[in-house]
Amino acid sequence: MYKGFFITTEGCEGAGKTSIIHLLTNHLSALGYEVMTSREPGGIQIAEQIREVLLDTQNTRMDGRTEALLYAAARRQHLVEKIVPALQAGKVVICDRFIDSSLAYQGHARGLGIDEVLGINRFAIDQILPDLTIYLDVYPEVGLKRIHANEEREINRLDLEELAFHQKVREGYLILTERFPERIVTIDANVEIEAVFRQVKAAITHFLQK
Amino acid sequence: MYKGFFITTEGCEGAGKTSIIHLLTNHLSALGYEVMTSREPGGIQIAEQIREVLLDTQNTRMDGRTEALLYAAARRQHLVEKIVPALQAGKVVICDRFIDSSLAYQGHARGLGIDEVLGINRFAIDQILPDLTIYLDVYPEVGLKRIHANEEREINRLDLEELAFHQKVREGYLILTERFPERIVTIDANVEIEAVFRQVKAAITHFLQK
Repeated sequence: MYKGFFITTEGCEGAGKTSIIHLLTNHLSALGYEVMTSREPGGIQIAEQIREVLLDTQNTRMDGRTEALLYAAARRQHLVEKIVPALQAGKVVICDRFIDSSLAYQGHARGLGIDEVLGINRFAIDQILPDLTIYLDVYPEVGLKRIHANEEREINRLDLEELAFHQKVREGYLILTERFPERIVTIDANVEIEAVFRQVKAAITHFLQK
Repeated sequence: MYKGFFITTEGCEGAGKTSIIHLLTNHLSALGYEVMTSREPGGIQIAEQIREVLLDTQNTRMDGRTEALLYAAARRQHLVEKIVPALQAGKVVICDRFIDSSLAYQGHARGLGIDEVLGINRFAIDQILPDLTIYLDVYPEVGLKRIHANEEREINRLDLEELAFHQKVREGYLILTERFPERIVTIDANVEIEAVFRQVKAAITHFLQK
């Protein structure tokens, strides 16, 4: 369909997505690929405006379904304006979070239902699924420890709530890896970044040989 | 499910919705019902902000699917914040345009597909369908004549394009009336407003007897 190919990275906070995207970009560039990295809303005016509505702190009463529809709308515009033209130009696109984030966070962890959120996202992406999704699987305890690494304090009630939420998100991701095994590759991200990247590199090599 | 009931009005421009809603409100009030009229975004802050994104003239590159998702998001929030509380309070809610407008305009006339647009709107409304939808059916020529009644000029190319588009919208509505006959009542709106309202009144009487 396109000359380029489309990779997404997924995972809970503290999974190490940022570092992995950086290493992967260098790796693919060294192999001669032209790489574009992005994440929604990605500087796309309409998507940025939608994100402003989502982040407006005055909008405390936003319904979960409204939120999911707005994420899907921003995704659509970012896809059409930024990702598709890059794929058409033959680039490798690495997008930090895409459809699976909505499915794991809104669909599973927030309880809207994976199938329900998948429905509106299928409408948004209109057949343009990632060719490969790298899911960095991390235990919530490990991920949160990394996020809060620089804070010296006792564990409080909010941390426990955060932990429970991250457990739900991870649960959601694990459901997705079982459901879409042909697209999602699971990487053990509990180890050191070099060991994580070795697994990612192996997965990419395997993917490129297909 | 609710004490009140939920009526929507639909139709092409020039069908006479505004006049009919006015007459219907008076009629139901005289019968002792407490009536609330609304239309999206209906003063709901989040929905108004979404509408601003939709109407921003700088957003000329907005994709049709982005647009449909944004309409669905505004619909959701308007429904949750305004319509549902009124229904719970036992009011009759008359909403000018609802799900069928998206299906006829975006789904059919703009070519996104009625089923596709229905999918995201089912997510948005989450089972809360109108109890009764009054579709004011008007020939495009009649509707456009009403809209342009005060303009004395020749028919130009834009008018013809407008006519073709309205024909597609009407076609979409007629598909919906066949598909949802238990919910949508079709009213011949080509005649004078008094004759249109007589039909609406008969439909309402029939509905209230159920």
